[in-house]
Formats: sequence, C-alpha cells, structure tokens
Amino acid sequence: MAETFVVVGGDAAGMSAASKAKRENPDLDVVVFEKGEWVSYGACGLPYYVKGEIEELEEIVAVPKERFIEERGIDLRTNHEVTGIDTEAKSVTVETPDAVIEQSYDSLLIATGASAIVPPFDGIDLEEIYTIHDPPSGRALREALERPESERPQTVGIVGGGYIGIEMAEAFRGQGLDVHVFEMLDHVLDPFGEMVGEAVEEELRDNGVTPHLGTRVEGFDGEEQVEAVRTESDAVHVDMVVVGVGVNANATIADAAGIDIGDTGAIAVDEYGETSAQDVYAAGDCAEAEHVVTGEPDHVPLALTANRAGRAVGQTVTGDPTPTGPIAGTAVVKAFDLEAGRTGIIDEERARAAGFDPVSVSITSKSRAGYYPGGSAIEIELVADADSKRVLGAAMVGEEGVTKRVDTVTTAIYAEMDTRQVEYLDLSYAPPFGPTWDPVLTAAKVLNSKLDG
Amino acid sequence: MAETFVVVGGDAAGMSAASKAKRENPDLDVVVFEKGEWVSYGACGLPYYVKGEIEELEEIVAVPKERFIEERGIDLRTNHEVTGIDTEAKSVTVETPDAVIEQSYDSLLIATGASAIVPPFDGIDLEEIYTIHDPPSGRALREALERPESERPQTVGIVGGGYIGIEMAEAFRGQGLDVHVFEMLDHVLDPFGEMVGEAVEEELRDNGVTPHLGTRVEGFDGEEQVEAVRTESDAVHVDMVVVGVGVNANATIADAAGIDIGDTGAIAVDEYGETSAQDVYAAGDCAEAEHVVTGEPDHVPLALTANRAGRAVGQTVTGDPTPTGPIAGTAVVKAFDLEAGRTGIIDEERARAAGFDPVSVSITSKSRAGYYPGGSAIEIELVADADSKRVLGAAMVGEEGVTKRVDTVTTAIYAEMDTRQVEYLDLSYAPPFGPTWDPVLTAAKVLNSKLDG
Repeated sequence: MAETFVVVGGDAAGMSAASKAKRENPDLDVVVFEKGEWVSYGACGLPYYVKGEIEELEEIVAVPKERFIEERGIDLRTNHEVTGIDTEAKSVTVETPDAVIEQSYDSLLIATGASAIVPPFDGIDLEEIYTIHDPPSGRALREALERPESERPQTVGIVGGGYIGIEMAEAFRGQGLDVHVFEMLDHVLDPFGEMVGEAVEEELRDNGVTPHLGTRVEGFDGEEQVEAVRTESDAVHVDMVVVGVGVNANATIADAAGIDIGDTGAIAVDEYGETSAQDVYAAGDCAEAEHVVTGEPDHVPLALTANRAGRAVGQTVTGDPTPTGPIAGTAVVKAFDLEAGRTGIIDEERARAAGFDPVSVSITSKSRAGYYPGGSAIEIELVADADSKRVLGAAMVGEEGVTKRVDTVTTAIYAEMDTRQVEYLDLSYAPPFGPTWDPVLTAAKVLNSKLDG
Repeated sequence: MAETFVVVGGDAAGMSAASKAKRENPDLDVVVFEKGEWVSYGACGLPYYVKGEIEELEEIVAVPKERFIEERGIDLRTNHEVTGIDTEAKSVTVETPDAVIEQSYDSLLIATGASAIVPPFDGIDLEEIYTIHDPPSGRALREALERPESERPQTVGIVGGGYIGIEMAEAFRGQGLDVHVFEMLDHVLDPFGEMVGEAVEEELRDNGVTPHLGTRVEGFDGEEQVEAVRTESDAVHVDMVVVGVGVNANATIADAAGIDIGDTGAIAVDEYGETSAQDVYAAGDCAEAEHVVTGEPDHVPLALTANRAGRAVGQTVTGDPTPTGPIAGTAVVKAFDLEAGRTGIIDEERARAAGFDPVSVSITSKSRAGYYPGGSAIEIELVADADSKRVLGAAMVGEEGVTKRVDTVTTAIYAEMDTRQVEYLDLSYAPPFGPTWDPVLTAAKVLNSKLDG
C-alpha cells in the first residue's frame, strides 16, 4: 500500500511540500487539508491589491487549486480544518464541511502559518477595524475602499509601524486616504534599526502620512463604527483602523498534541524541519528556523523561508533527507520612493546575547557615480564582531539600488566573512549603477579601519 | 632624510597610492609624474560625457589636481613623462616640459595605465577616426558632435562590440547619429557570453543601432576624411569612426627596465603588487592581478581594481604590507534600457584550462513578483564545476535589478560556495524587488539539480 503524506495548511510551505513530495515520488499519497478557501497565495501582495496596483485578488495566487489536483495529483481539500493530531496513532482529526473524519499519515507536515496579533484593545470589536493577513482580509479592505464616496473611509489609523504597517500606509495614500501610523516604539521598522527608521519616517511625512512615534494605543472610540484611535495623550479621529502589530505562529494544534513549542512561540524543529514527534514536520510561518549568525532558533515568518522549508520537507519525506536551511532574517520593504533592507544581526543587545562584541558604522554613499545624473543617497549600517571582525548584519536605505546590495552582505554572512574579506570583494561598477567603491565596500572599509583603530 | 615614494601615472591607481601613502606617513616624500594634463579622472564617465548627459568634462575628475598638492601634500607634476627606470640605481628619468631630470626613489609605483589598441587597418590615418580612453579623446569626440549642423557627422562606425563599443553606441544614438557596430566575433560583449550578447544585440537593433556581427573590418576608405568602413563583404558609409577593440597595458618602460612582463602583456606582480624588481610596484591597468577562481594572473583593467591595488601599494610602501587582492573579472554595463553583468569564469574553455569541469544552466526569471506591475525578465547563466559544485561564474541581463545580483554571485565566488550553498542563501524578497525565489536562487537550484542528476 502506498504511504501517505498529510499536509496541514495549503499556503506556501504546505503546497511547496506537497508538490515536491509528489514530484519526487508519484506513488506517494499526498493529502492537503486547508481550512479556508484559498491556497498558494502570496500574502505579500495584499498591500498592493488594497492599493489598487493589483487589479484582481486572484492574481496573487501562485498556482490555482485545480492545477494541484488535476496536474500534480495532489489530494487537496479546502474548507477542511485539522483540529487534532494523534502522534501515537499517526492520524489527524479533520472537520470537513459535512463531517468529522480521521486521516492516518505516515508523515505529517504542520504548515498552519501565522495569524495577525489582535491585542485586547478597548473597543477592538467596533466595526471598521481590520487586520490583513489573508485574501479574505485583503478583499474586505479593498471593498471598504470601493464603497460609494459618501460611505468610503477618509482617514485610516494603522496600529503598528512594522513593514506591513508601512506597506499599508503607502497603499492607503495611493487610495487617497489620510493616514496615521501609531508605533509604540521610538521608530518605525524596529528590526531595521534607527537609521532606517528615521529615513522612512521622513519619507512617510513627505508623502502626507502622520507617524505617531513612541505612542501606545490604549483603545478605540466609537458607537458602532470606530471613530477614533485613543492614545495616552490624544484621540485621533479615524474612519477605519488596520491593526498590524505582528503575527503569532499558529501552533495551538501542535501544542495540544504534545509537540514541543520553542521559546519564540513557534514550533520547534530540527535541521530537517522535524518536530519533537517522529515523522511530524513543521515548516513556514508556524515553525522556528535556525539563525545563521547565532545558531539559535528564531521565528522570522517570511515567504522564502516557508517555500524553502516546505520544499525541503517534501523531499525529506520521500526518503531523501534535506535540511531546511538556516535564515538570516533578511527583509526588504518599499516605503513610497524608498527601499529599505536589513539582514543578520544589527541589534547590539541581540549580538551580545549571542556572544559577540558588536561594533557598527554608518556610511552614506551614492547609487550612481558622482558625475552620473540621477543618483541618490544610500545609507548603510554595517555591524561586525570586534574580535573576529566577522560581519554580523547590515541595514540599508535609499531610493534605488538598496535591496540587492543587502544580498551581498547576506551572502558574506553565510560565508562567515570578516570585514576585511568584504572590503576585498570585486563588486560590480559602472557609472549608472554605483560609485567605483560600491557602498558595501565603503562600509566594510570604514568598519575595518574602525576595528583596526 | 625622508624616504621618497615615486609614482608614475596620475590616474586611479597612482593617485590612490599617493594619497594613501601620504596619509599613512605624512613624512614620506610622495612624487607623482603624470605625462598628461589630467589626473584622477573617471574614464568610465567618458561615454556619458560624449552622450551629453554629463555637461562638463571636468565633472569626471574625482579629485582636482590642486587638492592633491595643497591639501594632501603630494608633489604632483603633470606634463612630466617618465621615460626610463634604473632599478639598480633606484631612479627614474623624467622628461619635464623644460628638461630631462633624474629622480631617485626608495619605492616606485608604475601606474601607467593602458592604451586603446589601434590595429594597423588600411586607412587608419584618415581624419575623423578616433579612440576613446582619456579626457582629451573624449573632448575631441564631443567637439565633433558640437560642430555646426552641416559639418556634424551623421553616421558613425564603431569598431569593436565590447563594453566601450556598446556604451559609445548608446552615446551616439543619444546624439541622434546613425550607428553601426562592427564586431569580428559572432556576438557583442564576448566576455559576457552568448546569452548576454544576443540580448544586447536585440536591444541595439530596437534602438536603431546596426550591429555587424562576425564581421572583420579590413580598412577605411576616404580621401582625407574617413568615408566608409570596409569589411570582407561590404563598404558601409560613415562620417566618423571610433575604434574600441580593447586596450593594451602600458608596460613598455617596465619591460625596458628589465621588469618581468606576464603572459597577458601586463606587468607581473606578486600579491602586494611588487614587480620582479625590488621596491618597484605596479598597479592598475598596466598590471596583472590574480584571478580569484583560477589563482592565475589575469589582466582585467577596470576602475575598482586600479583604485584598490593603488591604495594597497600606498599602504605597503609605508611599511604595512597590504595585499592588492584578487579579482573576479566582475563587469557590468548599461546598454540602452538593459543592464548586463558578468563575474568569474563563464567561458568553458577557460574553466577547463583552469582544471574545472564546467556545467552551466540558463534560466529566465523576473525582476519583480509575477503579480506586481512593471517587472521585466532577468536571464541568468550560472556556471559551476561538475565535481565540486563550486560556483565559477555567472552572466546576467535584464532591464532592472541585474547589476547588484551579479554581486551576490561574486561574493559566493570569493567564499568558494557551491551551488547548494547558494541555493540556501536567505536572499531578500518583497514583491516590488523580485520573486520569492530570487533569480540567483532559482539559477542555483536548477544548476544544483542538473549536477545531482
């Protein structure tokens, strides 16, 4: 009898695993249970759908449901929610639209994703308060913006200045709304560091967005609909709220099944994505991943990690053990006309906790040769360990040429290069694309001097 | 008595060395002899000056002559040509505007650059035949384009489809000329490989440039002025010709002094840039550099290499031995609306000669997420060694997001990463900047599968 690979969750990690496993072993029975309607969608596209740059919600679907079933031979069942896992009996309990069934597995992947955190704010249940995390939530927001003019929201409050908050600020400005961003910390984009935060805040203001920094939201006022965001010091009138304060791993069913949960709140896994229960794997936004700098488990729920880990698990369950790979926490975001990026460890406290003695420099360079028309500034913060000079992380911001320069540093981090080695890289140069010394080289050179000094 | 560091040549390598040496040891006497008028200029900017995007020729000067003298304390003498080196007596012979002098040195840097190759074509001495390699040659071309309409050239023939030929084609089209590019080989941009060559040829045609491929130029016809480029099969009418078939290292004075010249025709150096003569260094376009993949001497005369090697020599001569560093042959070029790049070893024959068994794949991906508006194709050719899977080189072409992706591969090459390690890099992703799997990751994944297969 054919073995059965059961996948819980039909987005990036789940469908990557299912597709890879079926491709590697066509005899394998691959069953995917997805509790919702949508599979294999790019949640990262939602802000651009709300903005109106992406016309139809269906465009963010990477592979339509039918192709998984008809072309790839995957037994994909939507509106099927897995409510329990029995790791002894090797079976899952599934609520189908009609009944509750048991499905046995030989190997199981938990790919339940993450959910938007909704803090218990006073007034959180008022109407016109949204989160954004999946296609239906994106559709709800877009529909609100497509109402007749008299009912259309004019002012939106975004709670949380992380990358989703920033992307949504751009989306709502694109739709002509007044936008307020409320950030509890002193700067937006906290994981990108202060330098990037300040540049993005200026960009927000230049584009008519009002950032409220170091501002804790206490609740929402209103009768039926939200009418104001209440902070310690103020009440800001709004017609609509989006709460984007982060996500939590959907680890409840794993926890209930006795599977180990890590300190991050996500499911603990080994290098192959296997959980504490044998033949049970976890991948994507619900799972931890090893950080390449610290070697410690981390939880950075992003698309590439989910795709890659899912694909690796799909290969592993066919008998070809494949590591899911470490992460560097690489992230980039477009904020109006700015590009911001970060990779590795840039937070000093975090670096110290991992046993490093972090030293950093910030430099400003240019995206094109000085004499070539149209260039703009690129700011780079580069962090290295004082003793070993090993590059630990970087943050960057500028109008062009930022995101792929992050990848140069990411690659150096994976290779455990020191600042001297980075300074010696033969990086590309032509006047339209950068100065002779690429900004990354300049940052490494300056940091290297500082470490020598 | 203070020691004397003599530098022959006042462009990138020479002035970097002089500046660094003086900064490290202000007591050092630093004397630079430059045979021409111009110092510290960015020759890479010349095509954009001819195009008219850079208004004044002076804009391509990185640091004006006066600053070297007055602020940095360098004894910089223009219109001083070094005509001989006596490595025994440790002195150089210099033709000044007024006399011939001898200058002794404790350490010497030969930074004489390279010169445009002018093959002995029939008719090469006709008027309106140019090369482009230094500011005066750029000025001559620009002046030709600024003549009154009746005397202004209408049609230009560019001999050589290397990166200078391509940049000049764009410059002349920008000035409204008819442009013919004559390339002896089957494709333009030979060091970038066939895939890039074909894409750039299409771009040339789309922009009204006529490439003549696999076409050997036999000579030039005309009475006083050039009137046609004559090939084996044809005579193409032109009003002007630019010969851009490559450069030769200016190694004559080194050779005459008994200093070893490498097989490439450039001056042979050790890892510190020292030549076969003690205390005599060479850096920049006149010198060889070690290729990071082959470990063999190579001659890739480009700006960053010159700057870095010059700077290293400047440090070394102050008593702090500093390697000049290997090169990867990284190069990028803008061709109208295309970006093209290459790094490492992509030529199969060259890879085999270096002891590798090269395997390559070509993939086409996108510069933005599939659903995000405005993306364009990125083509990547990735080459690795069959046995070790070590990444040897890459070539890329596309409308955006190409050049800095070259640097990801360059960094991987320096780290001696294999295709598997590259596939596992946590490269940046956001919908405006690429697909979830960055094109570099996709190329590595496909090549890795092929190598496993």
